[in-house]
Amino acid sequence: MRRALALAAAGFLTMVHALTPTAPAKAQAPASQAGRVQRVVSPGGVEAWLVRQTHLPVLALSFAFRGGTSQDAAGREGTGNLMAAMLDEGAGDLDSDAFHGRLQDRAIEVSFAASRDLFSGSLRTLSEHRGEAAELLRLALTRPRFDAAPLERMRQSILASIRRASTNPGSIASDTFWSAAFPGHPYGRRGAGTLDSVAAITRDDLIALHGRILARNNLKVAVVGDITAEELGPLLDAVFGELPAKGGLVAVPDAVIAATGERRVVPLDVPQATISFGMPGLKREDPDFIPAFVLNHILGGGGFSSRLYQEVREKRGLAYSVSSGLAALDSAGLVTGGTSTRNDRAAESLAVITAELQRIGTEGPTSLELEQAKRYLIGSWALRFETSTQIASNLLRIQLDGLEPDYLDRRNGLIDAVTLDDARRVARRLFGAPRMLVVVVGKPEGL
Amino acid sequence: MRRALALAAAGFLTMVHALTPTAPAKAQAPASQAGRVQRVVSPGGVEAWLVRQTHLPVLALSFAFRGGTSQDAAGREGTGNLMAAMLDEGAGDLDSDAFHGRLQDRAIEVSFAASRDLFSGSLRTLSEHRGEAAELLRLALTRPRFDAAPLERMRQSILASIRRASTNPGSIASDTFWSAAFPGHPYGRRGAGTLDSVAAITRDDLIALHGRILARNNLKVAVVGDITAEELGPLLDAVFGELPAKGGLVAVPDAVIAATGERRVVPLDVPQATISFGMPGLKREDPDFIPAFVLNHILGGGGFSSRLYQEVREKRGLAYSVSSGLAALDSAGLVTGGTSTRNDRAAESLAVITAELQRIGTEGPTSLELEQAKRYLIGSWALRFETSTQIASNLLRIQLDGLEPDYLDRRNGLIDAVTLDDARRVARRLFGAPRMLVVVVGKPEGL
Repeated sequence: MRRALALAAAGFLTMVHALTPTAPAKAQAPASQAGRVQRVVSPGGVEAWLVRQTHLPVLALSFAFRGGTSQDAAGREGTGNLMAAMLDEGAGDLDSDAFHGRLQDRAIEVSFAASRDLFSGSLRTLSEHRGEAAELLRLALTRPRFDAAPLERMRQSILASIRRASTNPGSIASDTFWSAAFPGHPYGRRGAGTLDSVAAITRDDLIALHGRILARNNLKVAVVGDITAEELGPLLDAVFGELPAKGGLVAVPDAVIAATGERRVVPLDVPQATISFGMPGLKREDPDFIPAFVLNHILGGGGFSSRLYQEVREKRGLAYSVSSGLAALDSAGLVTGGTSTRNDRAAESLAVITAELQRIGTEGPTSLELEQAKRYLIGSWALRFETSTQIASNLLRIQLDGLEPDYLDRRNGLIDAVTLDDARRVARRLFGAPRMLVVVVGKPEGL
Repeated sequence: MRRALALAAAGFLTMVHALTPTAPAKAQAPASQAGRVQRVVSPGGVEAWLVRQTHLPVLALSFAFRGGTSQDAAGREGTGNLMAAMLDEGAGDLDSDAFHGRLQDRAIEVSFAASRDLFSGSLRTLSEHRGEAAELLRLALTRPRFDAAPLERMRQSILASIRRASTNPGSIASDTFWSAAFPGHPYGRRGAGTLDSVAAITRDDLIALHGRILARNNLKVAVVGDITAEELGPLLDAVFGELPAKGGLVAVPDAVIAATGERRVVPLDVPQATISFGMPGLKREDPDFIPAFVLNHILGGGGFSSRLYQEVREKRGLAYSVSSGLAALDSAGLVTGGTSTRNDRAAESLAVITAELQRIGTEGPTSLELEQAKRYLIGSWALRFETSTQIASNLLRIQLDGLEPDYLDRRNGLIDAVTLDDARRVARRLFGAPRMLVVVVGKPEGL
């Protein structure tokens, strides 16, 4: 039973999910998944991608507005995160308790989240309650109250989590890494904010950010469930139609990871050293993204079978887990990774990781590794299309990546088409002369 | 955003799930769900219920052996729990790392768990890897190694969780409640064991318990996925065929909750008082179970709309959450419930809860409450049939409850058929003269 590892793996999947090609397994998929996607444009002009499924009386709706925590004003970091916590804490005529009561009585689930580039959310409801669900989502998105009592409750909850994170080696390593990698850039800030910034956020800050981000020109929507295109149009207008046509996003400049070649040690009195590392990677639209995605699976994305895992854990027992991943953000692309190891083995662990990056950069993967990785990535994707919410989330991601529904049919072919030459070329590009930013938290010996 | 409440609600659902009628929503369900269930008996005599689904290349298998933590030997409490943690920590020729590597390389998920009455598990795999998945599950069930190194690792992990629980008010309240309710009975012991008992468990204890519980005469199996009955038979024999035909379960005597009418206060220096309460309830086979299930939804199972929630939280602000549930165990039936409240309001909270039990016992629910509860329970059930694993789990529960596949078609009708007279009669039976065992952990004033 490996809870810690399972959690780490889930975290990795989440990260890759946010930037990964999308489609069911080649062998088993129907001839065309894309053919099931309808592009619905409401009378009011709101577009959504719809997959109609009638085998369950459930409707799932996922949406995202471009502009996440990167839109927080300076000194008010954490505003987007606090707004996500507040949208279901009272809206329209309903206070926090009344709003939650209406949701719970009909088993309606709504959620909101702010990441670096997106403010996103989802809705899940029984089909029979979709009118009520749409009304509650409309209220949350267009008439949030930001009442004082729940605002203070959420603020205190977030402050408590920031305090907890301030003593957590993994959080310290992550915060230190991102602030060193992107100094002066929104990506360098912590999305949840700081104790000072969260304490300073006012109701007016929330209202201002809400007005800048939640607008129809920033919006993508995906819907899965027992609803026709004709029925969906009016529902889209009901939920999103009152939002302003245009928001006021601040441009986030493109950035490249800084401080590469540097190593920063944050002293902390703990038995394990936590290592975070990163280097320049690729954005999603880069033509090399798919080969890089396959290559990363071989290097450190593929769990037990990955090179980092085999070398660091299996052969040397240096760590319980080690992994790497692609972080393809809107304004920057990175390869990141990390591990935790005994303080007296931290230097050796980092040396092994560095050597593996250099080795794959020089030699590329083997043809056997490439075939196994492609087979795994093509086959396992189907596991992420089981629920309505998963399908909606994948459809949303494809839209955000600027792709068309046909990508559902093309994705596995693109992975299958990665040649050994492709993989070697991208390996040289990414790891041919790796210069990493490394952050170590703990009492590492010899670092 | 209500994480704490959502978690509480999820916990409640889990509990009810373990004892609840099962079927999709009436309005939307196909004419016969039961008609989709095939009873497959393998050449070797292993029976499983199968729902064939071909829209995803995924196979889910759920199984359970009667005999859970109640089978732990005296002084060795926690053996079943430790066994659940150990089955995937090495089996056959594969050590712990090799076993997990094989699972992860093919994205195969296995899990095991021990509850009071059951030792259960599940498997989820891509269809293309079902042969490998079956082989790994066979090894885990029939050839577990119980190697020394992972055994000590799991033991230490469990000991750490027991230590954490020993300072957690909710865990203390639960342990105190069950030990007072069932003194000298297996239900009175903590399933995870104690610091002493877990330290004392030997490899031979694991082997002995394994031999007593994991036998074919204790076994129920449910399978959902892209597999035919003809293909499933040999797979069942491959996985379960090597298990002994008969186990050696110790009889667990029927029991009735003791110490009713008593109140036990466990002093703990915390600002909140945690209250657990319970009284005699019903076993699953009781003819009044379905009316009691609906009644409990009205009393304290239905979240925001429930009487306890309205009276304790909404009207008086005494607690953030309060709920009740039916615990229908194999050898005892209970109504249980609980809340957390400020120490200086603990007495008032308990008085309000007691008054509500008496009120519903005397008056029963209103016809409006009954209709709303029935509508919610009938409609929301469909939300639990979305994934293959959920469907398999529900099919397994129906078997364990001694019911037939036609229950899938009958369940919502049974709920719909509960009359106001039924609800009042069962309310009188359960709450007409409520005598509760109450446990309070904290520094409650006036208790």
